Amino acid sequence: MSYEYERVAPAAGLRLHLNENTAGCSPAVVAALRRLTAQDLAIYPDYDDAVASCAARLRVDADALVLTNGLDEGILAAAMVAFRGSAPTAPLEGTVVVPAFDMYAACTDAAGGKVVEVPLGPAFEFPVDAVLSSLNARTRIVWLTNPNNPTGQSIPRDAILRIARAAPRAVVFVDEAYVDFGGESLVNDAALSGLPHVVIGRTFAKAYGLAGIRAGAVIGHRDTIAKLRRVIPPYSINVCAAAALPAAFADTAHYDWYVRQVAESKGLLYRSFEAHGLEYWRSDANFVLARFPGRGGAIASALAGRGVHVRDRSRDPGCADCLRITAGVVDHTRRLLAALEEVL
Amino acid sequence: MSYEYERVAPAAGLRLHLNENTAGCSPAVVAALRRLTAQDLAIYPDYDDAVASCAARLRVDADALVLTNGLDEGILAAAMVAFRGSAPTAPLEGTVVVPAFDMYAACTDAAGGKVVEVPLGPAFEFPVDAVLSSLNARTRIVWLTNPNNPTGQSIPRDAILRIARAAPRAVVFVDEAYVDFGGESLVNDAALSGLPHVVIGRTFAKAYGLAGIRAGAVIGHRDTIAKLRRVIPPYSINVCAAAALPAAFADTAHYDWYVRQVAESKGLLYRSFEAHGLEYWRSDANFVLARFPGRGGAIASALAGRGVHVRDRSRDPGCADCLRITAGVVDHTRRLLAALEEVL
Repeated sequence: MSYEYERVAPAAGLRLHLNENTAGCSPAVVAALRRLTAQDLAIYPDYDDAVASCAARLRVDADALVLTNGLDEGILAAAMVAFRGSAPTAPLEGTVVVPAFDMYAACTDAAGGKVVEVPLGPAFEFPVDAVLSSLNARTRIVWLTNPNNPTGQSIPRDAILRIARAAPRAVVFVDEAYVDFGGESLVNDAALSGLPHVVIGRTFAKAYGLAGIRAGAVIGHRDTIAKLRRVIPPYSINVCAAAALPAAFADTAHYDWYVRQVAESKGLLYRSFEAHGLEYWRSDANFVLARFPGRGGAIASALAGRGVHVRDRSRDPGCADCLRITAGVVDHTRRLLAALEEVL
Repeated sequence: MSYEYERVAPAAGLRLHLNENTAGCSPAVVAALRRLTAQDLAIYPDYDDAVASCAARLRVDADALVLTNGLDEGILAAAMVAFRGSAPTAPLEGTVVVPAFDMYAACTDAAGGKVVEVPLGPAFEFPVDAVLSSLNARTRIVWLTNPNNPTGQSIPRDAILRIARAAPRAVVFVDEAYVDFGGESLVNDAALSGLPHVVIGRTFAKAYGLAGIRAGAVIGHRDTIAKLRRVIPPYSINVCAAAALPAAFADTAHYDWYVRQVAESKGLLYRSFEAHGLEYWRSDANFVLARFPGRGGAIASALAGRGVHVRDRSRDPGCADCLRITAGVVDHTRRLLAALEEVL
C-alpha cells in the first residue's frame, strides 16, 4: 500500500513481532482444510456457513456483518465508501489517532482522502478533545483502535460515543482487532442503536490464529454494512477461509486457552520490566510495549541475533526506543525473557 | 458490489454456468494444501514462491506482475487508481464494451467513476471506431475483455493497440481471463513497450481450476504495476493460495489436458447447435454462447430441472434468448448435450 505501510519480511525463529498466535490455529481448522477436494477448490465459494457461524459467535444478525479478506479489506472498503468523490483540490479528511496501525493512513490516502493525524497524549492517553477539535465539515472517517496498537491502551467507551455523536456525517471505524484479549467491545452495545455510522472491525488473525487465512469482519448497522458490501468483490474470501471459520469458531476451548496464555504472558512481561526498572504500558491486547532508553534498536537486533523477533516501534510518534513484544504462548514468552536477560 | 454484479448461488448438479473447471484443480494443489500446518495458517503469508512461479510461468519479470485476490481485486485496484479524485460534479469516465463481465461497471461505479457503455456490433464484432469515439479528456480507463465474455470473441490485436495509442492518459485494462483457451495474449508483446498504460489481467480460476482459491494477476509496465500495488493490501492473498499457485503452475500436464478437453467440448457443442439449426458463436474461451429463439429462459430452467446448470444471458445487450454454456470436461459436455436433446 501507499503511505508507509511496511510488509515485514517473514523470519525464521520465534515470531513475536507481528502479534500472531504462535501456538497455531485450532487443529479443527487444519482438519477442515484437509477435507477440501480438488472439486471444492475449483468452484466459487459458498459463504453461508461462514457467515452464519460468525454471526452466531459474535451474537449479531447476519445482515449486520460482512466478512472481509483480512480486516485490511474492511479498512480499505470503509475508506472507499468514506472518500468516494474526494477531489484533489478540496480533499475529504480522515482523522487518525497516532501511533496507529499503518493501514488507516495507507487506505485513506489510496482512496483519495487527506490524513489528519491526532497524537495520543504523552502517556498515551486517548486525546478525546483533540479528536473532537479535528472534526470539520470535510471529515468523512475517524479511525479508532480499541485497544490501541502499539500501546495496548483501551479507549474509554464514553470518548468513542462522544466522537460518534459529534461526527454524524463520518464513518466512525472502531478497530477491535485486539479486543479478544481485554477491554470492552462495542459489538451489541445498545448505545450504537442511535449511531448507525459507527462500524466495528474484528479480525480472526489473532485470538483464532488465522493470520495466514486472512479473515476479518466489519459489524454495524445493516444499512452501513450494505454500503461496504457494495465496494467488496463478491468472492473476496476464498474457499479455504470459508471452511476455516466455522471450524475455528466451534473450537472455543482452543480460543479460551490462548486468551489465558496471553494474560499469563503479559504478567510475566510486566514483572520482568518492573524488575529491570523499564517503562512499559499495561496492555489490553496480546502484546506489550516497553521502552529501552537509548538502546531500543540495539536490543531488537540483539534479540533477532538470538532468533527472537520483536517489533521496533521507535519511529512511531512518542515511541522512541520502544519495542512491541507479542505476549502469547507462555513457553514462548519465557524464551523471549531468557534471551532478553542475556541481552540486558 | 454495486451496479448490477450478481453472485450466482451455488448449485448442486453439473455446474456449467460459471465457466469453472469442472474437472477440479491439479491433485498437486490438494497435496500442497494438506502440507499446511496449524502454524503455517497462523502467520502472515510469504509470497516469494508464488510470485516467482507465476512470473516464470508467464515469462515476465516479477516486478511486472502483481498477484491479486482473484482477478476481481485487480479490476477493483485498477478502478481505484483510475478514478482517484473523480468528483461527483464532473466524474471521470470508464469505457466498458458491453456485454461484458459485470465487475468492470461495478468497480468503476464503486471507485466514483462514470460508466460509458459501448455496445458490440450486431454480430458481436468488436466496435473499435465506437470505442475510439467514446474517448475524451475525462476517460481514465478502458475495459477490454479478450476473448470476450459472454461471446467468446477475440478482439483484433490492432484494435487494442489503436485504442491504447488514442488513450495515453487512461489505463487500458485488457482482461485475458479466458486467453488460455484461444486467441492471442498481449503478455510479452513487444508493441507494449511504448504503451506503459496497458495492463493485462489474468486469472488462475479457469484453466488451472482454482476459482475457489481466488488468485489472479495483473501484468504490465513496472511503474503502472507499482501504482496498483499501492491500493492492494499487503496480505491480500492467503497462505492457501500462496501454496496452491506454485503447485498448480508446476502441473503443466493437468493444464494441457484441460485445455484439450475444452477444445474437444467446443467442437461437440458446435456440431450439436448446427444440427439443431441454432445460432451460436465460435469461441476462443471455455464456454459457448448460443441463441434459443423464444425459449432461452425456458431451456435454462428445463436443464436446471435435469441437474445441469447453464447461464441465461438474455438480459445482456444483444443477447436475447442466449445461453452461455461452459465447455470443459468432455464427459460433462456429453451429459449437457444429452439433457439438451431431451429438452429440445
